[in-house]
This record gives sequence, structure tokens and C-alpha cells, in this order.
Amino acid sequence: MSSTTITVMLLVIFASLVTLLYAFFIFYKINKIKIKNKDVENVASYIKSGAMTFLKREYKIILIFVVAVAVVLAILGLIPVFNGAEGIGWESSICFIVGSVFSALAGFVGMLIATKANARTADAVEEGGISGALKIAFSGGAVLGLCVVGFGLLGLSSLIFIFTAATNATEQEAIKDAVSIVSGYSLGCSMIALFARVGGGIYTKAADVGADIVGKIEQNIPEDDPRNPATIADNVGDNVGDIAGMGSDLCESYVGSIISCLALGTVLLNGTFEITRVLFPLLIAAAGLISAVISVLIIRARKWKNPQRTLTIATYIATAIVLVATIFLSIFFLKDGNGHGEPKAIGAVVAGLICGIVVGKIAEIYTSSDYKSVKEIAKESETGHATNIIAGLGVGMKSTFLTVVVLALGIIFSYFFLGNYGIALAAVGMLSTAGITISVDGYGPISDNAGGIAQMSNLDPHVREVTDKLDSVGNTTAAIGKGFCIGSATLTALALFFSYAHAVGLGDNLNLLSTQVIVGLLIGAMLPYLFSALVIASVGKASNKMVIEVRRQFEENPLILTGEAKADYDKCIDISTKASLKEMILPGLIAVLTPIGVGFIFGAEGLGGLLVGGLSSAIMLAIFMANSGGAWDNAKKYIEEGNNGGKGSLAHQAAITGDTVGDPLKDTAGPAMDILIKLMSIISLIIAPILVEVTSLWDVLVNLING
Amino acid sequence: MSSTTITVMLLVIFASLVTLLYAFFIFYKINKIKIKNKDVENVASYIKSGAMTFLKREYKIILIFVVAVAVVLAILGLIPVFNGAEGIGWESSICFIVGSVFSALAGFVGMLIATKANARTADAVEEGGISGALKIAFSGGAVLGLCVVGFGLLGLSSLIFIFTAATNATEQEAIKDAVSIVSGYSLGCSMIALFARVGGGIYTKAADVGADIVGKIEQNIPEDDPRNPATIADNVGDNVGDIAGMGSDLCESYVGSIISCLALGTVLLNGTFEITRVLFPLLIAAAGLISAVISVLIIRARKWKNPQRTLTIATYIATAIVLVATIFLSIFFLKDGNGHGEPKAIGAVVAGLICGIVVGKIAEIYTSSDYKSVKEIAKESETGHATNIIAGLGVGMKSTFLTVVVLALGIIFSYFFLGNYGIALAAVGMLSTAGITISVDGYGPISDNAGGIAQMSNLDPHVREVTDKLDSVGNTTAAIGKGFCIGSATLTALALFFSYAHAVGLGDNLNLLSTQVIVGLLIGAMLPYLFSALVIASVGKASNKMVIEVRRQFEENPLILTGEAKADYDKCIDISTKASLKEMILPGLIAVLTPIGVGFIFGAEGLGGLLVGGLSSAIMLAIFMANSGGAWDNAKKYIEEGNNGGKGSLAHQAAITGDTVGDPLKDTAGPAMDILIKLMSIISLIIAPILVEVTSLWDVLVNLING
Repeated sequence: MSSTTITVMLLVIFASLVTLLYAFFIFYKINKIKIKNKDVENVASYIKSGAMTFLKREYKIILIFVVAVAVVLAILGLIPVFNGAEGIGWESSICFIVGSVFSALAGFVGMLIATKANARTADAVEEGGISGALKIAFSGGAVLGLCVVGFGLLGLSSLIFIFTAATNATEQEAIKDAVSIVSGYSLGCSMIALFARVGGGIYTKAADVGADIVGKIEQNIPEDDPRNPATIADNVGDNVGDIAGMGSDLCESYVGSIISCLALGTVLLNGTFEITRVLFPLLIAAAGLISAVISVLIIRARKWKNPQRTLTIATYIATAIVLVATIFLSIFFLKDGNGHGEPKAIGAVVAGLICGIVVGKIAEIYTSSDYKSVKEIAKESETGHATNIIAGLGVGMKSTFLTVVVLALGIIFSYFFLGNYGIALAAVGMLSTAGITISVDGYGPISDNAGGIAQMSNLDPHVREVTDKLDSVGNTTAAIGKGFCIGSATLTALALFFSYAHAVGLGDNLNLLSTQVIVGLLIGAMLPYLFSALVIASVGKASNKMVIEVRRQFEENPLILTGEAKADYDKCIDISTKASLKEMILPGLIAVLTPIGVGFIFGAEGLGGLLVGGLSSAIMLAIFMANSGGAWDNAKKYIEEGNNGGKGSLAHQAAITGDTVGDPLKDTAGPAMDILIKLMSIISLIIAPILVEVTSLWDVLVNLING
Repeated sequence: MSSTTITVMLLVIFASLVTLLYAFFIFYKINKIKIKNKDVENVASYIKSGAMTFLKREYKIILIFVVAVAVVLAILGLIPVFNGAEGIGWESSICFIVGSVFSALAGFVGMLIATKANARTADAVEEGGISGALKIAFSGGAVLGLCVVGFGLLGLSSLIFIFTAATNATEQEAIKDAVSIVSGYSLGCSMIALFARVGGGIYTKAADVGADIVGKIEQNIPEDDPRNPATIADNVGDNVGDIAGMGSDLCESYVGSIISCLALGTVLLNGTFEITRVLFPLLIAAAGLISAVISVLIIRARKWKNPQRTLTIATYIATAIVLVATIFLSIFFLKDGNGHGEPKAIGAVVAGLICGIVVGKIAEIYTSSDYKSVKEIAKESETGHATNIIAGLGVGMKSTFLTVVVLALGIIFSYFFLGNYGIALAAVGMLSTAGITISVDGYGPISDNAGGIAQMSNLDPHVREVTDKLDSVGNTTAAIGKGFCIGSATLTALALFFSYAHAVGLGDNLNLLSTQVIVGLLIGAMLPYLFSALVIASVGKASNKMVIEVRRQFEENPLILTGEAKADYDKCIDISTKASLKEMILPGLIAVLTPIGVGFIFGAEGLGGLLVGGLSSAIMLAIFMANSGGAWDNAKKYIEEGNNGGKGSLAHQAAITGDTVGDPLKDTAGPAMDILIKLMSIISLIIAPILVEVTSLWDVLVNLING
């Protein structure tokens, strides 16, 4: 390796370590805070132990999957090698294991800190008001955010460094091989994301819907009432779905975008191999880490009172730092084919940065009650359940328009700047701020949980008022975050698709007029629907079990409802845990096996069609479901604020129906779409070297028919 | 022209004329039947005049559009000619006008007979029971079915004959030019279908929802009660949407499939032009006409008592005749590249025939209460509105799986038999039985209307029982029909896409890896969502107006509710008519202008991407919406039969919500998807010769950037 390469890689690894160290420092600081209120401590310990129970069980199942996939990967990787051909070898299998472990670690630390920060946030409100509470909730989110990007980049850059250093080949060959090998790392992150996002999504909604149906509707007791046996499971679910799930989703995008950019960076330029094109995305990512650290440092150093303003400033600081680093690196580090600086890269990265912010903003326009869509749904709720549902479906469908236009513009601009490499750079640019985006996103469920704990510990109502204030900002950040997840997943999957096309040797052409591509595309477009249907059905089944259990507890022990006996929280946590882990296996298998099946039946071309069809269909469904769900949620809140008849009116009842319908759409099926397309893309990229070696069933048939 | 060509074309024209003559004969027979019950005659006259009012207004607006489009087409067609290049010329404009007129004529006659047959069906039950009524309802549908295919093929074959005969070029050149010119004919049919299906869909659901909300829910009066001012509009709507809309939808597919097959038939085979490949689809279509005539003759000749059996037998007879004709023509008429018979064509046509039947059957499985999906929705309704909606959404999404698998198999098989020409042949094969499919489909709304008339005329309850029996079969046929519409639209749009690719000179390659194709594809995948959102919003707006009007009438004249004063039906009809025609303009413009805009901005490749993205996305949404809607509808009926709590229970209320949500999905937005993709495909095909001549904005930019 050249000294430049070594320096850059060590710099990137160093930045990752600094980020992780800082994350652990904040972790230590939060952990050191003593919880003064005993009730708060008590409730929090239930949530924490519930969350840890889920994680332990989940990780056991994941372990089996990881071992199985690692073995399969090693075998698949070695078959071509045994035949004397080039293959991915056993190394990819190792990368896969490291990816799973690092991604799981990030999720574990994030969950751990979230279940500590929630209680301390509630406690801090009681002690000292909004400023201290805001700081704790934000710091909790920051630990998650910094861990996700820190672990993500540390593993990735270390593996590339090791595999580049460990060979006697030329630097060019070594890096190319290393980049191809580390796609296994991305698969590891995808695997964890699948479990955390889909399983977590089923968990959280089963608990939520179950708690609501028996608690709010049948027994008329408020949300987060300690008498409700499912209420702890509901709060655990917020951590499982919104902390671990969201973190692993963005971790997957983050790693995937960098890897696809590395892969496209190895493509020859004017016939020469330009090493800076491979190192550049790593440096942008490292700049992103440092920007997140600085941003968190600044926010933590001051006393803030306005949550919305704080979070916005955090994002702006990080974006500004990345921007400056990009300008510097593009001009002085990155080289075009002729050895000059490549300022066009600034355009591509900026396209990604802007795209991420705008897509989030669009999600806000369609889901915030400050804008007209949500008000229209509230208005339509006055005529009943059906009109509420129709209006919400319409809003979600309509929101695809602007979102797709912005994504398309992002793709077009970044392409005009630097071709497909530019598109991958835009994805890296968008995700370079992931550290701070996840921090902001993680803040939401922590303050939501803090509110739940305040309610369950019977704290003074003014505490709940403050936590509600903290939480209401969380709803907006959640909507923006979902938009960001969809946008980044789109660019990442697209970049992975280009990498796949390259890896599978399609050259520069994938013919949309060939029948196997069309068939692959149709199957791909169908999969998100099937996947959604399965996931939605799973939520239904799991929440039914929860409803039966809660009813049973209320019936068998009437003292629970009077508050004289304690509800059996563990039983409910157990139901959600078991159901979610069981129910996600079928959708998971479909996501993993379909690209493999389609690849071997319809060949590399057919699989390419599947990826594009799946991508286009999944994005639309994801936008539609996320925004319909978000709009319904806020329409309900808007009515509860006293509009369109207020609480208890027909409009309110209709709005509750909309909110309940939207829950599995926006928190389970919708986010699962991101995972589905990235997982299919990365699996395709991994099996690419094998697809090149074998003849597809389609080609066998065509040869047979043509004699 | 060779004598074979002349003979075949005259045969096809002759078959069309025979079909139309027979249709008019049945029309005459039905018209001759005297309505004995004065009340029935009275109510029927309201419906008829309402339907005619709508048609007249609609045709006026269409006239403006037709003239405008015809002028634009003529100018566009002549520009390349003035520049000395080849162009579509003014002839395509003429074809467009003929297509509009013929398609409108078919719709007009169909509506006219439906508004005659409905009253006579109700009257016949009172007179003689089920057998006579069944015969009238079926015959009414048959007039529509025979007119749609008769007019469709007559216009198409005559134009081809005229334009082939009118030139001095070789037969080969003459036919190629004629086929390219008659794509204008298909555009004419598409234009009428857009108005009838989308406008009609808005009309029928605005009236339906409006009538239900004030009548059933607010005032608690039964369906089809003469006191409800919107009830006539509701019955008119059934004719507008389900007769004219459905007929024009299938007419568009019918004509489109034949044209794309003709276009692909002109592609050279082993370097030779094989004229029988162009004549073959015309002959299959003619065989389809004759099969429909024979089938109707047989059904009309006997007395039937079981509606389901009658309709099934009618379909089987027609299918069997087409099959025999296909075998004969494939072996003895069609020639492969070496001048031998081409029995492989049998496989392609049969693939289409089977595909059509199976796709319909799948729709039945997901929407009939005989199967488990509908029962599950009914069960989920017990826990309320939200679970009913979630279950219904899940069923619709899940139903995409089997449908897409069957369509994919149909595409694969027909492709393996005869390549892209085989796929087009499969579409022709599927639609060859359209005459009888439309007859069976048209039977539904006629018996539905007969039931409404019986109710409004206060006929003996046993009459309503019989009409309900007739109608319940209509629900199944409607679901099957919708599946058939989607399946045929898919194959037709695909075949049109291949024709487009050929026409635009893409050769055999459309590169899915080029950015403009990807961007086009993403925009295409988004359009069906935007279109659906707009259409659904339109139904909402129009039905709100209807609700206000019905409430106004009840308030201003309380005697209406007691039955002492007559409601003002005309006012409601007027509202639905105006609203539907106004509301469909924006979606219509989007459908027409997007392909043109994308074509000029992103070039022929980008437009190709748009078509494929639109196709894949629209099919999924269409299947999802049609089957969710159908399943909700039948879950409600299933509960009303006394299951899961029966009428008046919470489950029933929830099921009504589901049914109301499903209405605009299954009857407006869903069917509009078929129109959207076919319209975009045919417009692309039409502007193909112009796209070839101009440089797209994309290419201009690329050239600018690359210096």
C-alpha cells in the first residue's frame, strides 16, 4: 500500500475510535446520574429488563442465522475457488460476522442507554425543568447516533485496511478485492437490520395495539396507565422499534452507501485506476463522524430551552462541517482522470445533503398539523371512520409525488456531476450526517418513554406536560427521520444496484426489453406488497394474542383494575417477544431467498430487473405508508387539541381508527420496505460472482428451445 | 394487395358486421317487450333520462377534446413530413376520430340497452320468474358485449383495409404504414375510455357514497329508497361506471392488443416479411366475434334457471370455439419464417386464454365469501373499524402475489412460444373472448339496477329476492371481470411497450442502467399513486356536494321523507354529472401530458422507463385496490347474512366502513389504473416517430456537459 492509502485509512479508523470513545464518555456521564424518585427507578427497571429480555432472545435467534449464513457464504465463496476460478472466498463470511456483531453492538448500546436516559429524563424534569431533561434525552440519542456510525465505519474501514494489507497483489488489485470482500460486512448489518426493524416493528405495534384496544377502548383507562398489563411492553416496544430498529436501518444504509461508492470508485477512469476515488467516500464519512462529535459537544455545552431549535441547530452544525470538509477534500484530495482536483464531487455530495433535508421536509408537510393535509383529514373525520380512512390514504398516495420528484432531481444532478459514482457519492453525502440524524431521531422515543414513566410513576402532572412538550417535537423528528430513511435507502439501493450490475459483468447494459428482465421487474414490484401483507398480518396476529392476555388478566384478577394488585407485565413482554421473533421468519426468508431464486432461474439480468422493480415499488409503498400513518396520527392529536369537535366526538373516534390503521403501516410495514430493498440488493451483490459462473434456468430453456 | 390479404380483411369486416347486426337484432327484441308495470316504467324513465343527460354532457366535452387532440395529432403528424422525413401524417388524426366515434357509439348503445333491459328484467320477474328475467338481463349485457367488440374490430379492420389499399407502395410497405397509422384509432378508444372509466367512476361513487351517507346512515332509510334524492343518480351511476366504463376499458384493451400484435407482426422474420403474421391476429379476433355470437345464440335459445351456470357455460362455449379456430388457423394459415405452419401460436394464444380465466379466478378467491380471506375480514370486523380496514388492506396486498405469478407465467410461456409477438398474441387470445366476457360483466349492473327499480317501484318483496339472486352472481362476475380487465391491460400495455420500443428505434435494447431510464421508471412508478390520490380526492369532493344537496332537500321539504312529496332527482344527477366531468380533467391531463413531457425531456429511453415503471406500479395498485374493495364489500354482505354478529352489530358497522372505503378504491381508482397505463403506452407509440426526430433535453444537457 502507498503511504497515502495507509495514512487515510488510519485517519478514518482513528476518527471512528474517537467517535466511539466520545459516545462511551456520554454513556458514562448519563449512567452516573442518580435517579432520585424511587417509583421512576422502579418503572424504568421494568422497561429496561423487558428490553434486555427481548434483545437476548433476539440475539440468540440471530446467532443461529448468522452462523448458518456464514457457513453458506463460506461454501458459496469457496466453490468457484475450488474450481480454479475467482471467488469471494471465505473472507466475505468473516466480514459478514464482523458486520453482524458491530451492528448488533451498536443496537445493544443504544437500547441500553435509551432505557437509562428515559428514566433520568423524567427525573430531571421533576428536579430541574426542561433544560436538564432536554440535555439528557438528546445525549441519550447521541450515544445511539455516535455508536451506529462509529461502529459502522470502524468495522468497515478496519476490514478494508486488513484485507488490502494482507495480500501481495498490487495496491489496485488489493483494494478491488477488499472492496468486493467487504460487501459481506454490509450483509451482516442488513441481517441485524432485518431482525431489529421488522421484528422490532412487529413487537412495538403488537404491544401498542394490544394495550390500546383493551386499555383505552374497552376499559377506558388512559395511555401508559400502570394498571394496564401491556403498558410496559408498549414502552419496551418504543425502544425496540424506534431505537434499535431505526438505528440498524440507518446503519445498513450508511454502510451500504459507502460500500457501493467504494465499488464504483474502483471502476477505471480514462483507463487509469484513481485510488483517491476509493478513499474519498471514506474521508467524507470520517468528516461526518467528526461533525457529529463537534455538534454534540456544542449542544451539550450550553443550556437549551427550546427542543425544536436545539435539534435543528445540531443538524445545521453537522451539515456545515461536512460541507466544508467536502469542499476541501474535493479540491485538494480527490483526483479526476487527469490527476487534477475534482470540484464536481462537491455538487454530488451537496445534492445528497440537500435531498436528505428536503425529503424530510416534505414528510413534515404531509404529516404535521401545521399544514393543510392533516387538517383535511381532521375535517373528513367529522363524517366518520370511512372518510377519515379515505382521506388518509389519499394524503399518503399524494405525498409520493413531491418526494419522487426531489429524489429524481437528486439522482439527475449527482449523475450529471459524476455519473453513477456521483449517485453513490450523493448517498454517502446524505448519510454523512447520519450520526446527528440518528441522535435527533433517538431523542424522540427517549422523551416519549420519559412521558410514559412519568405517567406510570404518578409524577406531578406538570412533569407530564414538560415531557409531552419534549415528545411533540419527537413526532416531527420521527416523520422527518422516516423520510430520511426512505431517501437514503433509495439512493443506497440504487448505488448498490449499479455495483451489482458491474459485479455481475453486465458491462454497461441491462436490457429492459428482454423478457426475463420484465418478469423479474414485475416480481420485484410485487414483493413489497406481499412483504407488507405478511408483516401487517403478523402485527394483527401478535396483537390479538396480546388482547386476549390483557383481557385474561383483568378478568382473573379484578384487583388489577382497581390498582390494588400489580399487573403481570412479564407475561405481556413475553408474548410480544415470542410473537415478533416468530412472525418475522417468513418475511425474512422471502427477502433473502427471492433474489437468490430469481438469480438462478432468470439469470443476472432477471435479478437486475427484480432489484429495480422492487426498488421502485418499495419506495412508493414506503412513502405512502409512512406519510398516511403519520398524517393519521397527527390528525388525531389535532382533534384532541380541541379542533373538529375535540375529544370524545365522532371525529375523534374516526381519527382513532385512522391512527390505529396507520400504526402498523408507518411503524412496521413502511420501514420494513427500506430493509427489503437494501437486503435484496446486497444479497444480489454478494451472489454476483457465483451468478457469473452458472447458467441460469432461463438460458438453459432458451438454448433447449432454440436447439 | 394480394388476394389472400383482401379476402382475409373482407372476412374480418364481414364478421364484425354480422356481430353488430346480431347485437341490433337483440336490441330490437328487448326494446319490443312492453313494460306492464307503470311504476317500473316510471322509475326506469328517470334512470334512463339521467343516464342520457350524463352521456350528452360527457360527449359534448369529449367532442372538444377530440377536436383539439385531432388537430394536434394532425400537426404533429405533418411536421416531420414537411421536413421531408417520414411521419405519421394526417391519417392518424382521422383514425383517432373514427376510434373515438366508434368507441363512443358502443358505449352509447350499451347504456341505452342497459337502461331498457333493467326495467324489463324487473318486470319479467313479476310476470314470469327467474328464467325470463335472466334471459333479458343477459341479453342486455350481450348487446353491450357484441357492440364493443363489433364496433372495435369493424373500425380497426376497415381503416387498415382502406389505408393499405389507398397506396401504391408494395403490400409490405403499405401494411406497415397502415399499422403505424391506426395506432391513432387506439388513442381514440383510449380517450373515450378515460372519460367513461374515470369520469364514470367518479360519477357512480359520488352518487353512491352521497346516497349512503345521508340515506342509510343519517336517516336510516334502506338502499334504493325512492325518498332518497340521490337514489336515481346512484342507479344511473351503475350504468355509467359499470356499463359504459367497463365496456370502454375492455374496448381499449381489445383494440390495443390487436394493434400491438399487428405492429409486432410486421417485424421481419428470418429477413422476410410474413404477411400471415399480420393477418393472423385479425382472424383470431374475428373468430372471437363469431364465438360470442354463437354463444349468445345458444344461451338465448334455451330456458335457464341458474344464473351462475348460464354465465359460465356462455364463457366456455366461446372459449372452446376460439380454441378450435386458433388450432386450425395456426396450422393451416399462419406461416413461420420458412413458409411452414406455426403450431407454436396455439401455445401463445392458449397461454392468454388460460391466463385470463385464472387471473379472474384468483380475484374470486380473494373477494368471494366462499373463501377464507373474506371470512377473516368479517372476523376482524368484530374488534372494530380499524382491524377491519387493516385486514382488508392486507388481503388486497396479498392478492398481488398469485396474480403476478400467473401473469408472469403467461408472459414467460407466450414468450417461449413466439417471442414478443407471442406475448402480443397472448393478449389477443385473452381478449378474443372479450365479447362474451363483457356480456357476462354487463349482466351484473343490469340485474343490480333491476333490483333497485323493484325496490323503488315497491314491487312485491319476492321480486327483489329474485333480483338479488340474479345480482349476487353479478358481484362475482364483477370481481372476475375486474381481474380480467387488469390481466388484459397488463398484457396489452406490455405488447404496446414492445411496439413502442420498436417504433422509436431502440432496436432491441433499452438500457436499464442509464440514468434517464431509471428516473423515468421512478416517475412512472409514482404516477399511479398520484393519479389514484387525485381520483379518490375527486370522489370525496363530489360526494360531499351530494351529501349537502340531499341534506338540503330533506331539510327544506320534510314531506320528502314521509313519502308525500317527490324528491328532486334531477338536481342530484346534475351534481354528479358536473362534478365527475370537472374532476376528471386534471387526472386526464396528467395521464396525457406526462408521457409527452417525459419523452421530450428524458428522450425515448426515459419514456420507455416511464412506461415500464408505470406498468409495474399500476398493476400492483390495481390488483390491490380491486381486491381489497371487493373483499370489504363481500365481508359486509357476509356479516349481513347473519355471521359474526349480523346486521346492526359492531362488526356490521365496521364492515360498512370497510365497504365505504373500498368503494372509491375498487370502482374508481383501481379501474382507472388500467386506463392510465394503456393511455400512456398508446400516446408514447403515437409520438414515437416525433421522438425519433428531436433531441431530448437530456441529450442536450449531456452534450453540453461533455463539451
